[in-house]
Amino acid sequence: MNKNRMESFSDGVFAIAITILVLEIKIPIVSGDKLVDSFVQQIPKILSFALSFFIIGMYWIAHHHMVHSFNKINRSVLWLNVLNLMFVCFLPYPTGLLGEYPFEKFSILIYALSLCLVNMSGTILWLYTTSKKELEAKINKKSRNYIAIIHMFPVLMYLISILVSNISLYLSYAIFVIVPLFFILPNRLLKIE
Amino acid sequence: MNKNRMESFSDGVFAIAITILVLEIKIPIVSGDKLVDSFVQQIPKILSFALSFFIIGMYWIAHHHMVHSFNKINRSVLWLNVLNLMFVCFLPYPTGLLGEYPFEKFSILIYALSLCLVNMSGTILWLYTTSKKELEAKINKKSRNYIAIIHMFPVLMYLISILVSNISLYLSYAIFVIVPLFFILPNRLLKIE
Amino acid sequence: MNKNRMESFSDGVFAIAITILVLEIKIPIVSGDKLVDSFVQQIPKILSFALSFFIIGMYWIAHHHMVHSFNKINRSVLWLNVLNLMFVCFLPYPTGLLGEYPFEKFSILIYALSLCLVNMSGTILWLYTTSKKELEAKINKKSRNYIAIIHMFPVLMYLISILVSNISLYLSYAIFVIVPLFFILPNRLLKIE
Amino acid sequence: MNKNRMESFSDGVFAIAITILVLEIKIPIVSGDKLVDSFVQQIPKILSFALSFFIIGMYWIAHHHMVHSFNKINRSVLWLNVLNLMFVCFLPYPTGLLGEYPFEKFSILIYALSLCLVNMSGTILWLYTTSKKELEAKINKKSRNYIAIIHMFPVLMYLISILVSNISLYLSYAIFVIVPLFFILPNRLLKIE
Repeated sequence: MNKNRMESFSDGVFAIAITILVLEIKIPIVSGDKLVDSFVQQIPKILSFALSFFIIGMYWIAHHHMVHSFNKINRSVLWLNVLNLMFVCFLPYPTGLLGEYPFEKFSILIYALSLCLVNMSGTILWLYTTSKKELEAKINKKSRNYIAIIHMFPVLMYLISILVSNISLYLSYAIFVIVPLFFILPNRLLKIE
Repeated sequence: MNKNRMESFSDGVFAIAITILVLEIKIPIVSGDKLVDSFVQQIPKILSFALSFFIIGMYWIAHHHMVHSFNKINRSVLWLNVLNLMFVCFLPYPTGLLGEYPFEKFSILIYALSLCLVNMSGTILWLYTTSKKELEAKINKKSRNYIAIIHMFPVLMYLISILVSNISLYLSYAIFVIVPLFFILPNRLLKIE
Repeated sequence: MNKNRMESFSDGVFAIAITILVLEIKIPIVSGDKLVDSFVQQIPKILSFALSFFIIGMYWIAHHHMVHSFNKINRSVLWLNVLNLMFVCFLPYPTGLLGEYPFEKFSILIYALSLCLVNMSGTILWLYTTSKKELEAKINKKSRNYIAIIHMFPVLMYLISILVSNISLYLSYAIFVIVPLFFILPNRLLKIE
Repeated sequence: MNKNRMESFSDGVFAIAITILVLEIKIPIVSGDKLVDSFVQQIPKILSFALSFFIIGMYWIAHHHMVHSFNKINRSVLWLNVLNLMFVCFLPYPTGLLGEYPFEKFSILIYALSLCLVNMSGTILWLYTTSKKELEAKINKKSRNYIAIIHMFPVLMYLISILVSNISLYLSYAIFVIVPLFFILPNRLLKIE
């Protein structure tokens, strides 16, 4: 299997995972006069949908940048990629949990850990593929390490979000929002590519 | 990332969003003799499915026409596109709401606002990408403004649909149907492409 | 928009529609000792899943053969194609209905009519695109009419299946199975391509 | 239809089937203080999600390797491929069943049989396509038979998993885990490709 095929399969998986997020927002079944109230209660679900949409968008772009530097792939790269995609595909579940239980520390915990798993498996995929000499990745050592750090930095942030959830859940949410903004807003630290 | 990759990812998202609309029409669980009644009660859901199918089809074609004029893209284009896709992917929810509560003004409101957000984010994507000189979009200023107006015209219509829902919901529905028809039927105003 | 892009979008829609069929088979929530009974009750759903899987597979192959003969497309072709895809995407609903109410004439009726709509909209797409001289379809008149007949023949069969459902539902099911078999088994009538 | 189109359609189906697995893990609706308990009860579903994710990943890679050796295809290849995809697309159902009833022999039975059907239909697709001289598959007879055996070996394992479920369900699960590991871990028996 070549890199392009792995990449287009991954693209498909990202596109599906991001699109089915909305299915976690169930249509409320109430009498018409309670519709507005039901909708208001669903606003956390809509916000968690939007948050995860941007986070999966961020993972898709990160995945593209990683694979762009790849050259050859082997069986292990393929399976490390499947592992990374598995954690991405799992995200609708913690997203739904966060939307249903926005004020439970446990939802924050599961959401943050799930995101950590995506970042960690992505970093392993990156470090493995760029370290195997026979795969001839198109990257110098300095850039390689820098990108690994950029990939692991959200893990640190998400772990902090778990810790601060003991103080205030709003602090945790602030971190969830800041991490994608770091990648979305113009950012000198991301200029190397 | 180049424009083609952004476009094929977007195509995938449009294809999935349009196809999962049907999942909002749940199979009724009743005794066999009440099946016909249950089906009749679901007709609003089937109609809202059909309406949204054509509206997402319209957005897909509009998106294609926009991206066709793009040349280079940058990080901001990528994220404005993710924003636009997010509002597209949200549509199964207001569609389901409209199908479940076809005679509530509130469903009309949410449906109309959701469509406005798609059109507005699409217009922002268009104006940004065609205004940045370094992205070298293949479009002259006059066509550029004309297309922006064509993209914003449904927003005006949808806002009117919200207003007229105070008079009659059927007027709102008429507007929801007229807007896609404007793009589907032969139309001299769309000849510039 | 060119033909290839319309085709790859359609392929995506077919792939998604065929894959989400399984979501209509809900996991039963019962106590463990009733699991086998619950599963047995779901067998009609599994059979209707399998039937629709082959029928959508048949539509996908038919769509491919049609578009293969197309050359240029215009706005009307695009929208007739969206209409055709809409009826394809609707199929998970009648499939779920048939699986939930396998012994109700009404499910047979809705299922048969839904299939008719796919075949009829496909035929309209075919006749329109191959009749417009400026679209320069690569097909002679005789083959064109022959293919239109092949596309309309299942409509006749599905209408018969509705009629015979008054005598025996099993006759209707026999027809549902025979139609895809006609296209799957080696068949001299399909040799023209 | 050519092989590439069949392959990209299949890729799409694999990508969707693998991504919608997560939809079988429903968000629990309980009071906040019971959230942790509810989550703990869902762990079997998360594990069955992960198991099936790797198994479908394995089928995707196996499918790619098979089709790589194909050259020409005919109508029968197309339909044998649809049959194979049907069994793949069915997998979210037995996965959900296994997750909901992890300690019922019946779930093990359905899960194992469903996997057998994927492997058997894949083997039939392989043997048919490589045996028809006019399809000119790029494979010698020895490799052809070897790959057929590799494809059938999991069937044997899954049948054993059904048998041993009478002794201990954990033995069955061990087999479910060992089979994908055989394909994931470096393995001299898979070196021929």
